[in-house]
Amino acid sequence: MILALAGGVGGAKLANGLSLVLRPSELSIVVNTGDDFEHVGLKVCPDLDTVTYWLAGLNDAERGWGLAGETWHFMAALKRLGGPGWFNLGDSDLALHLTRTELLGKGASLSEVTRDICQKLGIGHPVAPMTDQRVQTRIHTADEELAFQDYFVRLRCEPEVRSISFSGIETAQPSAALAAAMNDPTLGAVVICPSNPFLSIDPILGVPGVRQWLESTPVPVIAVSPIVGGQAIKGPAAKILRELGHESSVDAVASHYSGLIDGIVIDKIDEGAAASLRDQGIDVLVTQTVMRNVDDQRDLALAVLKFAADIR
Amino acid sequence: MILALAGGVGGAKLANGLSLVLRPSELSIVVNTGDDFEHVGLKVCPDLDTVTYWLAGLNDAERGWGLAGETWHFMAALKRLGGPGWFNLGDSDLALHLTRTELLGKGASLSEVTRDICQKLGIGHPVAPMTDQRVQTRIHTADEELAFQDYFVRLRCEPEVRSISFSGIETAQPSAALAAAMNDPTLGAVVICPSNPFLSIDPILGVPGVRQWLESTPVPVIAVSPIVGGQAIKGPAAKILRELGHESSVDAVASHYSGLIDGIVIDKIDEGAAASLRDQGIDVLVTQTVMRNVDDQRDLALAVLKFAADIR
Repeated sequence: MILALAGGVGGAKLANGLSLVLRPSELSIVVNTGDDFEHVGLKVCPDLDTVTYWLAGLNDAERGWGLAGETWHFMAALKRLGGPGWFNLGDSDLALHLTRTELLGKGASLSEVTRDICQKLGIGHPVAPMTDQRVQTRIHTADEELAFQDYFVRLRCEPEVRSISFSGIETAQPSAALAAAMNDPTLGAVVICPSNPFLSIDPILGVPGVRQWLESTPVPVIAVSPIVGGQAIKGPAAKILRELGHESSVDAVASHYSGLIDGIVIDKIDEGAAASLRDQGIDVLVTQTVMRNVDDQRDLALAVLKFAADIR
Repeated sequence: MILALAGGVGGAKLANGLSLVLRPSELSIVVNTGDDFEHVGLKVCPDLDTVTYWLAGLNDAERGWGLAGETWHFMAALKRLGGPGWFNLGDSDLALHLTRTELLGKGASLSEVTRDICQKLGIGHPVAPMTDQRVQTRIHTADEELAFQDYFVRLRCEPEVRSISFSGIETAQPSAALAAAMNDPTLGAVVICPSNPFLSIDPILGVPGVRQWLESTPVPVIAVSPIVGGQAIKGPAAKILRELGHESSVDAVASHYSGLIDGIVIDKIDEGAAASLRDQGIDVLVTQTVMRNVDDQRDLALAVLKFAADIR
């Protein structure tokens, strides 16, 4: 059994790769929900949706998020009614948000809704939120506190980040799927996908009990660096690293996960950093980590699993 | 000041015609809300929407309801998720339902939401629901009670109607716009649009105080017959008349409104019924009532207004 922690496009790509090489009973994908928010009355879960659409084979590979072949008539009509135009909701994507919002309104948990949606879309591998409680990622700048999507979409990650907090995290509990993986005697590895460490992984680590469990678990914990050649493949990870006073490097990613990970997977372009990482006692796999297509996703998944098995 | 009571496509067409020949300060359009329902978590108000889209010039003239140029990607995605496919929600139309549902959820009244939406769509003439309280038209057949949209859309009006009731009507109150029109000393006429008497007009008449007011008001009350040559232009009015034991005729429409109306507008094809209607003390205008285009809507509106003025 492999537990994959994911959020965002990079995480969804590796989760998809893992789903191509592991049976449904061998993989549990747990997804960040700190990005979730209410928009025009709908519960939107961007990271869960990205993972779901990739695993269903419905994703827009170029844009990264949302559905392939999406159309945008709803957005034009919403703006005509004076509604907010800064967050794009595609016509087909709306069906997922409406279905989820309705089921949550009837009292279902986010785990139950996610399982139901995945089943309807033919996804065999279990996908679950990190928690069923409401956790909200908040971005603190020099002079204000921003809701995550305000920062990420409306302001296009432009404000300089001073710190990040997760409102509600103190009282959150691991979802049933996450708790089950944490207590699974057959667990073979934890894979921290190449997602933004601050925005996608830290919320999962912040759910009470998760960080302590990762620190003490005997199973190998492997992180795949989202930083490649000093840059993030997508999103503001490199920018935030610098704003928080770090280098934008694989070393900084390893430092961020210090005490949690047994191994790190870095791209060939960062091979020069391997020796010093190994000196710090971290196993290192150097391979191609950039996933340009589904074959790359599968290859990286296989390499990560072999790396974990070698550590174990 | 003219008060128009409307619901459905025929009502929307005449309301639109009236809006073309009266100033906003001279017309109040009050719409049936018995058809309103919750669907996939959204508050859908079919009659209000039909009137709104016609007055905004956004309507699909051929289909009668909904938006011109509508697309249906959401519905395909909803069905893929196992959602209900029997009630069509267009991609652009969804923006209205979501906007309304969100505003109602924040505590706005249906009157306020309707006013806001009309303003955003550039509609100058006031459009209002008959009530801000929840009233639900229920269709009673030989062996079951159906929610209105189950009968009207899902079952395509096929079940035989034994009776019709309006759940919640006892505690409903006229909306502010309807109450204002009822108390307006400058009111010159009430126009009952060519809408289904049972499904569109009876709910309005059932709001406590409305029927009694129409019975006693000194201003002329004019109905435009939705039955033309024994048939309904659209919808199940003729079928329901027969199922409830009446002829499908303009006489039956006049009987239905007996005691309420001072005049009835019938189509040229029904000219033969005029004499007996006049014998019953009802003024009759024979004219073309079928509205094939906007010019017809305007012409019928002018004819109805002149007829009301002559009665007055």
